[in-house]
This record gives sequence, structure tokens and C-alpha cells, in this order.
Amino acid sequence: MRIYLDHAATTPVDPLVLKAMQPYFSKDFGNASSIHSFGREAKEALEQSREKIAKAIGATAEEIIFTSGGSESDNLALIGIAFKNQVRGNHIITSSIEHPAVLSTCEYLAREGFQVSYAPVDKEGIVKVEGIEKVLDGQTTVISVMHANNEIGTIQPIEEIAEIVKEKEVYFHSDAVQTLGKIPVDVNKFGVDLLSLSAHKIYGPKGVGALYVRKGTRIQPIIFGGGHEKGLRSGTENVAGIVGFAKAVELANERLEEEANKQRKLRDKLIRGILEINDSWLNGHATKRLPNNVNVGFKYIEGEGLVLYLDEKGISASTGSACSSHKLEPSHVLTAIGCKPEDAHGSLRLTLGRSNTEKDVDYVLEALPGIVKKLRKMSPLIK
Amino acid sequence: MRIYLDHAATTPVDPLVLKAMQPYFSKDFGNASSIHSFGREAKEALEQSREKIAKAIGATAEEIIFTSGGSESDNLALIGIAFKNQVRGNHIITSSIEHPAVLSTCEYLAREGFQVSYAPVDKEGIVKVEGIEKVLDGQTTVISVMHANNEIGTIQPIEEIAEIVKEKEVYFHSDAVQTLGKIPVDVNKFGVDLLSLSAHKIYGPKGVGALYVRKGTRIQPIIFGGGHEKGLRSGTENVAGIVGFAKAVELANERLEEEANKQRKLRDKLIRGILEINDSWLNGHATKRLPNNVNVGFKYIEGEGLVLYLDEKGISASTGSACSSHKLEPSHVLTAIGCKPEDAHGSLRLTLGRSNTEKDVDYVLEALPGIVKKLRKMSPLIK
Repeated sequence: MRIYLDHAATTPVDPLVLKAMQPYFSKDFGNASSIHSFGREAKEALEQSREKIAKAIGATAEEIIFTSGGSESDNLALIGIAFKNQVRGNHIITSSIEHPAVLSTCEYLAREGFQVSYAPVDKEGIVKVEGIEKVLDGQTTVISVMHANNEIGTIQPIEEIAEIVKEKEVYFHSDAVQTLGKIPVDVNKFGVDLLSLSAHKIYGPKGVGALYVRKGTRIQPIIFGGGHEKGLRSGTENVAGIVGFAKAVELANERLEEEANKQRKLRDKLIRGILEINDSWLNGHATKRLPNNVNVGFKYIEGEGLVLYLDEKGISASTGSACSSHKLEPSHVLTAIGCKPEDAHGSLRLTLGRSNTEKDVDYVLEALPGIVKKLRKMSPLIK
Repeated sequence: MRIYLDHAATTPVDPLVLKAMQPYFSKDFGNASSIHSFGREAKEALEQSREKIAKAIGATAEEIIFTSGGSESDNLALIGIAFKNQVRGNHIITSSIEHPAVLSTCEYLAREGFQVSYAPVDKEGIVKVEGIEKVLDGQTTVISVMHANNEIGTIQPIEEIAEIVKEKEVYFHSDAVQTLGKIPVDVNKFGVDLLSLSAHKIYGPKGVGALYVRKGTRIQPIIFGGGHEKGLRSGTENVAGIVGFAKAVELANERLEEEANKQRKLRDKLIRGILEINDSWLNGHATKRLPNNVNVGFKYIEGEGLVLYLDEKGISASTGSACSSHKLEPSHVLTAIGCKPEDAHGSLRLTLGRSNTEKDVDYVLEALPGIVKKLRKMSPLIK
């Protein structure tokens, strides 16, 4: 029995996505920049994919720049805007609970002389809009706030933030890697200028993503070369990957409501069941929360031990996020919402996906209390 | 009848490569950073691939940094070294016939205040080593010279260049995208500190590459985030792509000599046959040349017309390189070897691959003279 509950880390490629990709590996394998028939066929597949993805988020095709994934998209958005608009100002605003691809990029920009302000969040992980308003000044060129958090699933007030900068010469970027295909994403409704997307979180292949860049945005590349992607991202386009990405977006949007409803029910059953364990709590917001995200804390134990014991029972889960697993520090997200370090260490993230059923939930709810009990017995944290 | 003669632009994924990749899409799909079994399996596949690629070029696994492809590798090498070593010097040396991923990156670095020197080449496209020696100074931090040129196939005196910087605190980078799997590549024999590699030029998938970074090299990332790839390249690793890349390297090296011999014969037959057409010439060096590269010039005609007429006959060829096809200017490589702009426009590149046979060569040699004749008839360049 193997139950995969780590869909926020990555997802399996949907068989229909893989099927769509297959012809572009060995048969229609052309370089989209070549002018012969192999090249033109590749170019056509590329542009059709661009159209599909654009349509899915309310953009136009020319506003989609393909990248190697969410991290590169975040880097392109922040570095590309910060440097290109440096003459106008050197202040960047973000939140304290962003993905490392945003936070580490901001740290780099700070080393390069930019000023970075980190807007705080409330104890449920919602970015304080007044915190952004307070630090916004004439030097601000870009604000970056994620659509939903990858660890605790909290959905951010994107439209409210967009409202603040609406009349100002400030670009608004949002990382929608965790929300695309899970809850509605519309660049115009949101009022964002840049939006990061990734394929492998929505049953598409790894190594492909995109950055939505609103027409007229002043931005420069971070990867230079042959001038692909309107000069914003050089390098031979990954046609098979991009075709798979487009198919994944299409499928995810077709099933969005049905899946969200199904997963929300499973999520709430999981949360209710887990919170029956004593000294446990929910991290994040009860309702302004991704349909597939469960993040709970347990007193006196280490999340890593929890994950390893669950793995022995065939359950794949995580503590913190996969993207932060290279670090030993407690999750910056949990710390930001006010968890004490020792409590932040005892967190468990379960993220549902298409394959999960009520049986999976029941199995987890049966296995978890015993594991928590066992770990607490061994815990040096209990006096 | 379709004859693909544009293998320098891209290659079809080898069926054995695709077979090796398949399990990592939908079955063993884990995120290599996850600590549960799906993650550990992905991590193992990743590290085995790293070992294989390292071994193939005489490196150790820890010296291989996976990227999204050759362009990103070139960017990481140059930007990463230039900025990280800025305190020591701000001078970069490259050649006038590098790939756009190197040249455009150097232009960017020049805008950022770095000094860039371009070493000239002789009329066969060989970089003048004394040209590098002449400009090398105490400010130089990195030299970048490609292993073989992507347009005219000229193989560069890498070892001689390495010799110059051997005792100096100067890093040596080489773009080996066109040579990996075609002629022997060994980082220690070459004496390089950084080497760019790409999968899709050797029957691997698009969207995957690597940068060899010699142990102890001072370099900083260009994509920041979760700290993957020893902190040098953040972003969830493209496991399927990387597994495919490793398999492609393995296959290419196994068949290297056999393929090189076969293609060299076909290449020379093509060159001999084509040069029977009047007012034609070979671009590049006759022998210090990639086994699969043919680049010829024709007076009075446009390469683009040639490519389109050949395409009508089922032959996929190119003029200049696919990576430069976004530009209308004559090839910087042909200009650098002394072609007049009107002659540079009349160039044709045919690059052989595993699938090509003597029959293909005969077919091209039969079709080409008529096409050249037809184009010359229409040419406004003949007075």
C-alpha cells in the first residue's frame, strides 16, 4: 500500500499529458527555431501550447514566457524587474512567507544594493495588506506576494494588494505555482503584472514553467543568448515539456471544480480526524486555504521522524516543504505565523491529489495516532 | 522522403533514451528533495545520472551541476564567475565566434561594467591563441572559448589555451555542447574549469543540460531558491530529463568512434560533391572539424532560399544556426572568418547524425546543383 500525500512537492505526470508529449520526443523533434518543416512543426506545437496556457489564465499568448520551472520564473520576475527599473527605484516589497525562490532571490538583490521589505502575516498566514501599504514608497518598483502558500496553503488577498498599486508605477508579481489548476487563476481579475507557473505541480512534467508578463512591462532577461521567447529567455525551447504543460493546464482546469470539491472534503475529514490527537493544532487558515492542503502541528515531536514512520506505513508526507528540505532551520513560514521553533519542527504537511480517496484518509487517520504516540514516548522534549 | 541534416540544431530522442526516461514521468515521479520513498528513489536516479555524466567527461559527480540546457550553462559559467570574482578583476576574454549564449551574456556583462575582449580567429575559424595571450592581464578572471563551433564545426585548440592560464588565477570555460558524444571530451586532459553540456544535441531530451564546475571554483548562482545542486542551481530537478541525459551520454560515448568514422566519410563525400558546383567553397577547417559538420558557401544566393527549396525536396538543412535564426544579420561566425556579408548570406549548413546513410548523401548531391542553379537564375546579385 502506497498512499501519496505530497502533491504540493510534485505530482505524477497524467497519462494523457504523457500521451500528448510522446510525439515530440523522437518523431516531431524539431528545433522550433529551424525554418525547415521539422522546425515549423515544433514552432506550431509551441505556439498552440502558449495559446492554451494564456487562455487558461486570461492572458494573451504573447504574454507567456516559457521557463524551466517555477523557481526560474520567480527569479526572472524579481531580478528582471528590479534591475530593469533600477533607475526609477531600488525598493522591493515581499512577504515573510514566500517560497525560497522568491526569498533567496530577494536576499541576492539585497546583497546587490536593493532595499527589501518583508510584509508580516497574521497568525493564520494571511499577508497584512496594511503592512505593504506602510512600507510602499516612491522607490518601490515591485511587490511580490504569492497566491497561496506552499506549506500552510493559506490563500492571499491578491486582489486587495493589486488595488493598492493599481494607480502606481509599481509592478505586482505573484507566485501561483501552488494555485494554478487548484483554484481559479485570472491575471486580469487579480490585477497582477507577473505570475509564476509550474507544470510539475499539476500533473505535468518537471523542468517546465512559465512567467506571465503583462504587455508593456519593463523587464530584462536573466538568461541571455539566441533571443528566444521575445528575447526574455534564451535557450532551445523544451517542446515536449511545453506541450505537456499545456495539456496539464487544460486537464486541471477542466477538472478544477470537481477536484477542489472532492479534495476539500477529504482535507476537512483529515483535519478533523487529526485534531482529535491531543496537543495538536492546525497551521494556517481554516477556510482561506488550498483545497488540498493539510498542515498540522504536534507538540513534543519532530516532523522528520513523523514523515519517516509514515513512510514505513506506505504514506508519503512532508514536514515543511520539499523545497526547504536542504535547510535544518525551522520553517520560516511557521515561524512567521508565530510558532515557537520547537513547535515548528513538529509539523506535518499532507497534500491531497487526484488519486486520493476516502480510504486513504481513513488509513492515515488509523496510522497516525499510534505513530505520534510512539514518537512522543521517545521524545526528549517531554519532561 | 525526409532526410534530416540539421543535427547541430537538435536531434530526435533515441528510443533507448526515451525508454530510460519513461518510468520517471508517472511511476517514479518523486521530488528528489522529499525524504519519503518516492523522493529517495528520485534522488537515487538523479545521483546515478550525475555519476554517469561525470564519468563520461573525466569529472567527479560533485562537479556536475544540472541546468535547463546549454544556454543556461553558458550563462551560469560566465555570470557566475564574473560577479563572484569581481573583487579580483573585471576582465573577460572570449572569441568572436562563440555561441550567442556566450556572446549575448558577454554583452550583458559589458553593460554591467565588465571589460570584454574578443580574440580573433583565422580564416578557417581557429581561435588565435596569441590573440588571447595578448589581451590577458591581471584583471582577467575568465576565458571562454568553445570546444567546437556550432556553425562551421571548427575544433578549437582548447588544450593550448588551457596551457596559458594553467599557472594563473584565471578560470577557463568551454562550451562543449557541439562536441560531447561526437569527439572525446575530458575535462582534465583539456584543463578546463567549467564546461557546458546539453542533452538534446546528443539524442537526449530538450530542456536539460549541465555545467561541469571544477572543485574549488569560485562561482555564484544565477537562479536562487531552495538551494538545489549544491546551492548553484535552485529548482526541482527534472529527474526524467536528467535520466535521459545520462542515458544519451552513455549511448553517444559507446558509439562515438564508430559514428564519428561513419559521419566523417559521409561528410567528406558531401563536401567533395558540393564543391563541384561552381562558385562554391567550404567554410571552416578541412580536418580540424566536427565529424558531422558541412558548411559551404555559394556565390549569388541566399541561404534561406536554399533551405526552403531543400525542404521542399524533403531535406532539412540550415543556414547559420537555429540559435541565430531570430536575427537578420549575416552570421557573426562567417563574418569573423572573413566572409563578405553577401557571401555569408549564401551559406548552407548540413549536419549529419546517426540516421543518415550514403543514400541520403547521394540524394542531396543530386538535388542540390539544380536548386543552386534555379536560385542563381532568380538572383538579383548576378549582374
